[in-house]
Amino acid sequence: MKIVIVGASGTIGSAVSNLLANQHEIVRVGHSQGDALVDMTDGASIDALFEGIGPFDALVVASGNVAFAPLTELSDEQWQLGLESKLMGQIKLTRAAVPYLNEGGSVTLISGILSEEPIYWGVSATTINGAVEHFVKAAACELPKGLRINVVSPTVLTESMDKYSAFFPGFEPVPAARVALAYQKSVLGVQTGQVFRVNG
Amino acid sequence: MKIVIVGASGTIGSAVSNLLANQHEIVRVGHSQGDALVDMTDGASIDALFEGIGPFDALVVASGNVAFAPLTELSDEQWQLGLESKLMGQIKLTRAAVPYLNEGGSVTLISGILSEEPIYWGVSATTINGAVEHFVKAAACELPKGLRINVVSPTVLTESMDKYSAFFPGFEPVPAARVALAYQKSVLGVQTGQVFRVNG
Repeated sequence: MKIVIVGASGTIGSAVSNLLANQHEIVRVGHSQGDALVDMTDGASIDALFEGIGPFDALVVASGNVAFAPLTELSDEQWQLGLESKLMGQIKLTRAAVPYLNEGGSVTLISGILSEEPIYWGVSATTINGAVEHFVKAAACELPKGLRINVVSPTVLTESMDKYSAFFPGFEPVPAARVALAYQKSVLGVQTGQVFRVNG
Repeated sequence: MKIVIVGASGTIGSAVSNLLANQHEIVRVGHSQGDALVDMTDGASIDALFEGIGPFDALVVASGNVAFAPLTELSDEQWQLGLESKLMGQIKLTRAAVPYLNEGGSVTLISGILSEEPIYWGVSATTINGAVEHFVKAAACELPKGLRINVVSPTVLTESMDKYSAFFPGFEPVPAARVALAYQKSVLGVQTGQVFRVNG
């Protein structure tokens, strides 16, 4: 299977890449490094990415930014970051991948635990993650060619606790290797329209 | 109680207005008609609205557009309509209302049944409605001054079935008067962070 991983050099992306690389052909995509480059907020950059890759079997996304700030202080620009990157970036990647995905292929996006459990400064993340999960639910009903689509929703990573633990009081972290299993389930399984939650 | 209703001339907005007007002071806000005018996609227009109204007790929103088209045909511009109007429009109204809302006041937004049940051509509506519901969940945790926030999620309206019945096969419609009760529950009740679903 030929699998395109957007965000392949990140903590989750490299765990997914490591898990799947033994038995599959991986195209590692990043913003500044990898087998191919993409700016996921830019439709033309996304089109060029898939034109360069040609037909493939699975799109995996482990990338997307949102801003963190208190509700009453979040600016339009900070909201826009999440809307353009983690939400519309993933929607544009999905839409542009459809013509290149082989029959029976799949798309696996990323949301995050904040869709279920708000934290202070996390209102944009909760909103955007919820939007991505709802996009997947609807898109699964309409995708052509027997394509499937799911979303992985990880809690905070063990590997990131040195940076983020203060924002996630009482959250049990999980190692990226566990999150990678949820991607594997999505890519190689049969389910569609699902949110695979990876919680502690 | 002084209640500001954005979208007051619409089918739902006028039902809410009718239900609450006997016992409360209603400020009817619309895009082109009402006691006050607002373009909910425009932050400056929203700021001017609340400056003109001054302190009040409840913000009710029954307005917001999304585009309908097949998943693979929805353009960036069509996605942008829902993001700017029904999502960010409601978020901007909420953010701008906070300084004007009296202690213990409330905000009630609108989503819709498509967050739960996708229909053909409805992927943007499912995504945006889901985003609004998640925004409310997170915002409820952060609002100051004992402010509450909820969202009403109506199914298709009885009053709209002549136009929309073909898009909602098998959906039981509800009259706008039933939807207005959910708004009343939000404005006059004690709950916060809730999705009040009004289904057939």
